[in-house]
Amino acid sequence: MDSALSALIAELPEGTVVTDPDILASYRQDRAADPAAGTPLAVVRPLRTEEVQSVMRWATANHVPVVPRGAGSGLSGGATALDGGIVLSTERMRDIAVDPVTRTAVTQPGLFNAEVKKAVAEYGLWYPPDPSSYEICSIGGNIATNAGGLCCVKYGVTSDYVLGMQVVLADGTAVRLGGPRLKDVAGLSLTKLFVGSEGTLGIVTEVTLKLLPAQYRGCTVVASFDSVSAAADAVVTITGKIRPSMLEFMDAVAINAVEDKLKMGLDRDAAAMMVAASDDRGAAGREDAEFMARVFTEHGATEVFSTDDPDEGEAFIAARRFAIPAVEAKGSLLLEDVGVPLPALADLVSGIEKIAAQHGLLISVIAHAGDGNTHPLIVFDPSDAAMTERANTAFGEIMDLAVGLGGTITGEHGVGRMKLPWLAGYLGPEVMELNRRIKTALDPDGILNPGAGI
Amino acid sequence: MDSALSALIAELPEGTVVTDPDILASYRQDRAADPAAGTPLAVVRPLRTEEVQSVMRWATANHVPVVPRGAGSGLSGGATALDGGIVLSTERMRDIAVDPVTRTAVTQPGLFNAEVKKAVAEYGLWYPPDPSSYEICSIGGNIATNAGGLCCVKYGVTSDYVLGMQVVLADGTAVRLGGPRLKDVAGLSLTKLFVGSEGTLGIVTEVTLKLLPAQYRGCTVVASFDSVSAAADAVVTITGKIRPSMLEFMDAVAINAVEDKLKMGLDRDAAAMMVAASDDRGAAGREDAEFMARVFTEHGATEVFSTDDPDEGEAFIAARRFAIPAVEAKGSLLLEDVGVPLPALADLVSGIEKIAAQHGLLISVIAHAGDGNTHPLIVFDPSDAAMTERANTAFGEIMDLAVGLGGTITGEHGVGRMKLPWLAGYLGPEVMELNRRIKTALDPDGILNPGAGI
Repeated sequence: MDSALSALIAELPEGTVVTDPDILASYRQDRAADPAAGTPLAVVRPLRTEEVQSVMRWATANHVPVVPRGAGSGLSGGATALDGGIVLSTERMRDIAVDPVTRTAVTQPGLFNAEVKKAVAEYGLWYPPDPSSYEICSIGGNIATNAGGLCCVKYGVTSDYVLGMQVVLADGTAVRLGGPRLKDVAGLSLTKLFVGSEGTLGIVTEVTLKLLPAQYRGCTVVASFDSVSAAADAVVTITGKIRPSMLEFMDAVAINAVEDKLKMGLDRDAAAMMVAASDDRGAAGREDAEFMARVFTEHGATEVFSTDDPDEGEAFIAARRFAIPAVEAKGSLLLEDVGVPLPALADLVSGIEKIAAQHGLLISVIAHAGDGNTHPLIVFDPSDAAMTERANTAFGEIMDLAVGLGGTITGEHGVGRMKLPWLAGYLGPEVMELNRRIKTALDPDGILNPGAGI
Repeated sequence: MDSALSALIAELPEGTVVTDPDILASYRQDRAADPAAGTPLAVVRPLRTEEVQSVMRWATANHVPVVPRGAGSGLSGGATALDGGIVLSTERMRDIAVDPVTRTAVTQPGLFNAEVKKAVAEYGLWYPPDPSSYEICSIGGNIATNAGGLCCVKYGVTSDYVLGMQVVLADGTAVRLGGPRLKDVAGLSLTKLFVGSEGTLGIVTEVTLKLLPAQYRGCTVVASFDSVSAAADAVVTITGKIRPSMLEFMDAVAINAVEDKLKMGLDRDAAAMMVAASDDRGAAGREDAEFMARVFTEHGATEVFSTDDPDEGEAFIAARRFAIPAVEAKGSLLLEDVGVPLPALADLVSGIEKIAAQHGLLISVIAHAGDGNTHPLIVFDPSDAAMTERANTAFGEIMDLAVGLGGTITGEHGVGRMKLPWLAGYLGPEVMELNRRIKTALDPDGILNPGAGI
């Protein structure tokens, strides 16, 4: 293997292949911190598609598994290193070109989501998908997981904004799929197939994104409830009538964790808090905000606050975004991502409460409520083996609960390695077989991110 | 074969399998009227998924090709019958259930697009995709082709509204993909892969659609131009700034053909007419309409008409929808569907004019201009062999022209059989090979719609 690796090192520009053990150690895990992570043979940090092709040709010839990695912010362990494998990090692939005329951006995968947003904003344009981690997650990783965020309730997910891509396949072939055309139905929808494939089918080295005109900064409505089910009922009433641009949920644990840190006067006694927004312009947005405030009140909100000051609204949205780090201050997190059809949201949250009580665990639930996509945050101490085991048990039980309610094991974080044991049970044997057939057709030797995704 | 067919007839409910030669003849072609269409062995009109499974199991066992067919309104020959094959028509599969709480509809493939719209409208909901043929095209066919329409410039295409489906695979296995969950990233994006696959990967027997709250009936702006490029430039200026809900183009031939029939006072001397709309509510929509009217004027429009009376606006939209039948009154049509990036729209239209002049043909161009998706209508007399040949030549030249401008050979009608000869040239050998690998992985015997789509 050493001599094989030397050949790769020689083929690529100096500094592209890293074998320093300290650096390798820092690429073993993503944010999921999978304890089973291996130590890679090397980390490769290419700049260009051609270099990615070299890596894949080499990997195919030498039967070496390759784990693609964006910014390492993944929460399902999709970028967990394998012993003796390559970690292919796209972090240095950072070019972007914005075309305001076609309203598209062509970007390499290494830019952070926030950097893409910033680059297109200079042209008065907007890239909607906004994972809470948008300042530290890469656009390539967003594509790998089909990432969502807070805006999805109105603006959809990453897949809805990917018009085309360049992908390097397992054997090193580079292909271009789609492009800056808003409609194109020639051939199979391969662009959409690669979005969300978690690096198991190919490595995205360039992507063409659809952009929208800048978002209008509208109205925000914040409401506190003394019951989770009342808040959940309000969600269904709202989404049945209007299209809010945000409809977020925090439970009591999250409210208090955020208040501990930000001291912004959140209601510590509330069982649930909703942060809702409308980005419709002018009177229409105010009308929607009034409607949401009325629905919250009718569903028994103990406090309702509305504002058409965007900065004031942004403070509450930032509070919601801050929920994960705030709860993380209480211990390590196992971060869940289950989703259910909207009417099952209240049952999901109360079921999670039961699981928490049963295992003596603190589990905080935050949710993109308008999508039925929740993030139960399981707090545990990794140095406490018994507690870690209870946390892992709860992690699985929450997925089983969601599936039992007609939901999914992952709404936007991806399957990675952490959720793979539950995938076959969720999809069923026939759909699992269909996934495998496509995987085998595109990566017959199974060298792309084996053990993750599918 | 006769005895094999008898077994299928015996297995399915009475009347499901049709072998009457007159009826078979009416299922040979779709609206593309492919002269090379064969005569099927039988037409099968199932009611249930289980019956589709029986057909596919039988077809696999007997190596008989199966051509899935929706309403037969396809314009690329995707439902062209094969000699000795089965035409599997989904026309009798017409159940629909709307769930206003999850804002989804579960529908069988046989309903017309307009029927789906009507069924969900009863709940105050809206299914956006709106091919011009929405009154005569089936939702199953829409999914097979990833159909678009007039609303796509703001609301996207069919794929954006398909959350899940039931599909019967080549071997008769029925699988459920996705479901009524707005976010779900577990496993590969198979739902999206099947949308637009033109019956080559499986037969969709049920689909879960995402719905929106009812559309607001906003403002309409109509403008006439004495130059196509001025109209095209206006399009780019508009889409760079706002999100119109419609941005449609008609050329002089279409304007006059529609005026011949509808006598609504369209400007017969205009080189181009734009029909634009905004469905933003209240002042925002009026503001957008004023902006579009101003842009049209600044780009030299000879006449601009704005209205916030939805019925008045609807008359112009109906005129645009009527363009295809109106031009069809002049002869048979070869209906093109090429798309280009927006800045190339004017070059595409002028290139088509040259092709028309060169071959002595009448070619009218209508377009979903905001998407860069055009429908050149090549008028010809099928009883005139020389003219038919010239029309076919022009058909190919228009695709070559579009591809040369960075465009696609089909924006929303699909490849079918008519465009298949151009597919490999457009996609290139590597992407074509990728398509074939997936096709082979899912339909190893190649019995699903062979010769169409991919």
